Amino acid sequence: MSDDLRVRDVGEFGLIDRLRAVLPEHVRSGEPVRVGIGDDAAVWTPTPGQVSVITTDTLIEGTHFRLDWTDWRSLGHKMLAVNLSDVASMGARAVLATITLGLSGDERVADLEEMYRGVADLAGPFGVAIAGGDIVRTPGPMLLSVTAIGEASRPVLRSGAQPGDIVAVSGTLGASAAGMRLLEHPDLRARATTADLLVAAHLRPHPRLSLGEILADGGVTAAMDLSDGLLGDLPKILAASGVDAAIDGRAVPVAPSIRALFPSAWLEMALRGGEDFELLLTIPPDRFAAFVERAEGVGSTITAIGEITARAGDRSRIMMTDADGNRHDVDAGAFDHFGS
Amino acid sequence: MSDDLRVRDVGEFGLIDRLRAVLPEHVRSGEPVRVGIGDDAAVWTPTPGQVSVITTDTLIEGTHFRLDWTDWRSLGHKMLAVNLSDVASMGARAVLATITLGLSGDERVADLEEMYRGVADLAGPFGVAIAGGDIVRTPGPMLLSVTAIGEASRPVLRSGAQPGDIVAVSGTLGASAAGMRLLEHPDLRARATTADLLVAAHLRPHPRLSLGEILADGGVTAAMDLSDGLLGDLPKILAASGVDAAIDGRAVPVAPSIRALFPSAWLEMALRGGEDFELLLTIPPDRFAAFVERAEGVGSTITAIGEITARAGDRSRIMMTDADGNRHDVDAGAFDHFGS
Repeated sequence: MSDDLRVRDVGEFGLIDRLRAVLPEHVRSGEPVRVGIGDDAAVWTPTPGQVSVITTDTLIEGTHFRLDWTDWRSLGHKMLAVNLSDVASMGARAVLATITLGLSGDERVADLEEMYRGVADLAGPFGVAIAGGDIVRTPGPMLLSVTAIGEASRPVLRSGAQPGDIVAVSGTLGASAAGMRLLEHPDLRARATTADLLVAAHLRPHPRLSLGEILADGGVTAAMDLSDGLLGDLPKILAASGVDAAIDGRAVPVAPSIRALFPSAWLEMALRGGEDFELLLTIPPDRFAAFVERAEGVGSTITAIGEITARAGDRSRIMMTDADGNRHDVDAGAFDHFGS
Repeated sequence: MSDDLRVRDVGEFGLIDRLRAVLPEHVRSGEPVRVGIGDDAAVWTPTPGQVSVITTDTLIEGTHFRLDWTDWRSLGHKMLAVNLSDVASMGARAVLATITLGLSGDERVADLEEMYRGVADLAGPFGVAIAGGDIVRTPGPMLLSVTAIGEASRPVLRSGAQPGDIVAVSGTLGASAAGMRLLEHPDLRARATTADLLVAAHLRPHPRLSLGEILADGGVTAAMDLSDGLLGDLPKILAASGVDAAIDGRAVPVAPSIRALFPSAWLEMALRGGEDFELLLTIPPDRFAAFVERAEGVGSTITAIGEITARAGDRSRIMMTDADGNRHDVDAGAFDHFGS
């Protein structure tokens, strides 16, 4: 049965041909890509007057995804999404991506084709070309590595936040963490009417590409994407900009369904849950209202959650107002992927 | 002891800081890189009027390298070299690279710092910036993945070979395969006076970057780097260009030491041994002499080994003249990394 065809049956070059064939023509090539999959390198023509950005992220089976939790198409979507999210957070437009697969050879070709359909689902609408990559054999867990290239007239960095700027986030936080919790607890998932939405937020996050493209013009002074949670990522902006922040935990936007499903954990999910892939940004108060309106025009809600303040001590701090209105310094250490 | 410090002791961000500190200032930043390691993405300014190229290659412990065969500094050199070789083969100048490490957490920090010294050894002289990357935790074998960006006024593709063109290679072939054989057979290595040179060819291949930069101007019609062996790689140029080739096996340049050490295997090493990272190219006869002279000026010897011919059948073929002067079709299938 062709459905049971394995990678080792078609070989490296057979697999490349099949995966390439899954991608629609406009995802495989077209301006500005001049040479896509199939040469020693892909070739594109940069847009004159713009800077280029490059970002890379790798997903390892067992560490970053579980094949018993995700379908293949969602996995393809997500491996590209986490990279395009970094492009968006730079205020850049995504141009192309390369994909590296580390495989045992035992994978079903049909599954990998389905994964590439998920890649195309996201790449197509945003005009991102899949321009090349590498397929290697590994005796270890499956690895999926994507490198994305974008372009911007002016990049938005982590280092531009100024005292007095509003701190804001797009969308709502905690949905990915809630979705992961539901995947861990099938009994809870079966009872939750919003379960599918939350699980989808975890499995198929939507990078804020359209929002990213309006950051620079909108007056945003610093931005990053929320991959390690608000309290994991905000410190990176504060450290890069040499500032502190005061955050009102009560203002953090969290979907009502998450509050209802996780009455004791929802705030933690919103503050420390990772992989929301919303944008965290800082912006001067006099630019805020116009930016919110423009963001809504591209489908993103923006919520102010605090303010940038001058650095008070030796290192950057976050002063958090909690649900009871009490103010306290929070432990703002970034999530360490090698922590025990 | 600090020498015994492990990745899990310093964490992801501690490791990034330490590896970044190993890189000399001019490798970490400087024109055209505007933002290097430390933001969501690296930012650079493309050279006006040039196209950009991107290539990516991944090394997996056990599949692509053995820690009992290589020292860490050589491993750092090689992980960058295999990528820069692809940039050179496009006729491009290397601009920057990103590095992804997949680690268990048990690695010694000092070993990885030494690996980054090897990266800097190669990046520095060629003006390649190490602009960013990703560090992920994996329960599997160590993975080293590099993506390199280059620029060219005009890229040299696989698809430009024309009947009548000379087929040529840079340097000599088979040294990497011979070096690997010596690593497999320590007894043989101990007896061979040229062993260290051959082993070095395997562990620290030199990408032909200076040669790459003169390909387009020199009239080269097609090029690629020899990573899968002459008989594995030439078919890719033939297929992309829709042509055949006649190759004189007696003309293939092989170091005398390899012939002496491996009297029965040297030709196979030269024809099918991979990882020489020399350039394979095609060029019209009337441009050849001037190109050879110019290549010597940048330190590369060029040897004609055959000729491109019109395609005779349904698919591209290689007509090989063997050591005895007999002509025959060779099995020109590319090495398949998932083959049994």
